[in-house]
Amino acid sequence: MSTRPMEIWFEFASSYSYVAVMRVEPLARATDVELVWRPFLLGPVFLSLGWNDSPFNIYPPKGRYMWRDLERLCAKYAIPFRLPTKFPRSGLLAARVALLGAGQDWEGAFARAAMAANFAEDRDIGTPEVVGEILTDLRLPAADLLERARSEDNKLALRRQTGRAEELGIFGAPSFVVGKELFWGSDRMDDALDWAVARRQEA
Amino acid sequence: MSTRPMEIWFEFASSYSYVAVMRVEPLARATDVELVWRPFLLGPVFLSLGWNDSPFNIYPPKGRYMWRDLERLCAKYAIPFRLPTKFPRSGLLAARVALLGAGQDWEGAFARAAMAANFAEDRDIGTPEVVGEILTDLRLPAADLLERARSEDNKLALRRQTGRAEELGIFGAPSFVVGKELFWGSDRMDDALDWAVARRQEA
Repeated sequence: MSTRPMEIWFEFASSYSYVAVMRVEPLARATDVELVWRPFLLGPVFLSLGWNDSPFNIYPPKGRYMWRDLERLCAKYAIPFRLPTKFPRSGLLAARVALLGAGQDWEGAFARAAMAANFAEDRDIGTPEVVGEILTDLRLPAADLLERARSEDNKLALRRQTGRAEELGIFGAPSFVVGKELFWGSDRMDDALDWAVARRQEA
Repeated sequence: MSTRPMEIWFEFASSYSYVAVMRVEPLARATDVELVWRPFLLGPVFLSLGWNDSPFNIYPPKGRYMWRDLERLCAKYAIPFRLPTKFPRSGLLAARVALLGAGQDWEGAFARAAMAANFAEDRDIGTPEVVGEILTDLRLPAADLLERARSEDNKLALRRQTGRAEELGIFGAPSFVVGKELFWGSDRMDDALDWAVARRQEA
């Protein structure tokens, strides 16, 4: 039986990416869908849409709603949540580290820990101190990873990954890609998994 | 047992309102939640956010995605769908007629028929001819309703309803209001109904 993977495209600064990242692994496992983590940066994507900040900041009614909605979603799924004192935080360094984790056994754990640091622990994931602490807590070589994260090769790799997101038509996060099919938003994660399962059965 | 109603705030030009309007009545009945129809106009709400057109037109990647997502949603829920040749169509006249239907036994049927005319039959619901045909098909007095729809009192009532939407923090359609709780998007209809049911049990 051939499997069709589901890619999760996420940004560490994105509130709804938090919900998806915390939930995705058990759901993918339960449906036997291969999961591919795709950290990227929303900033350049938003800039190309004409936004130089999160739309939740640019449009206050959307922002007020989003925080209440996020609080309700986290309660529904039993995900810890604390209103961050800064939004959005830079997800740049965390994304660079996550990219180094591609295919490694720690990529999911790092994504969840960095997301929770931002949205449940109100820690500034934009700083090397906090990202270093997260890596150390995961028993990973923090200093080495932080240095490799900021290498020119890795910076370029993240720029390419973000460019690839735009090529795929991605305009927000989280997004899910199954074959040629794009799904936007944590609300579409179940549909994306269903899509992967249905296409596998056809194969 | 006291019931807490769920208000559905919808706009006839709105693609995701189509999905919600077509699905809401049986779901409300199944959960024994009183349904209150709230037609309003998104145009003034969008203008106050700085948009003079649908965001699906202003931001092409969002628009391309929305049509594919809508097609998938309609397939999932067995709702007929045909890509409209014009988007958005004016929902003004249909909203004025819907407002006259408040509390009448035809309000749900009219909302579904006008929505389907726009998103399944590619008919211009912005014209009195099409709205008149829809009313006649529902065995309603089309000429009389069209005249009353355009009375000064009714025009004012719709402006007030749209103003009320903004006061409630509504920034898109469909939205659902249960007590003081706001839910945005056809994806939140089930959560809004669950909210109404949970609050009823507490009462």
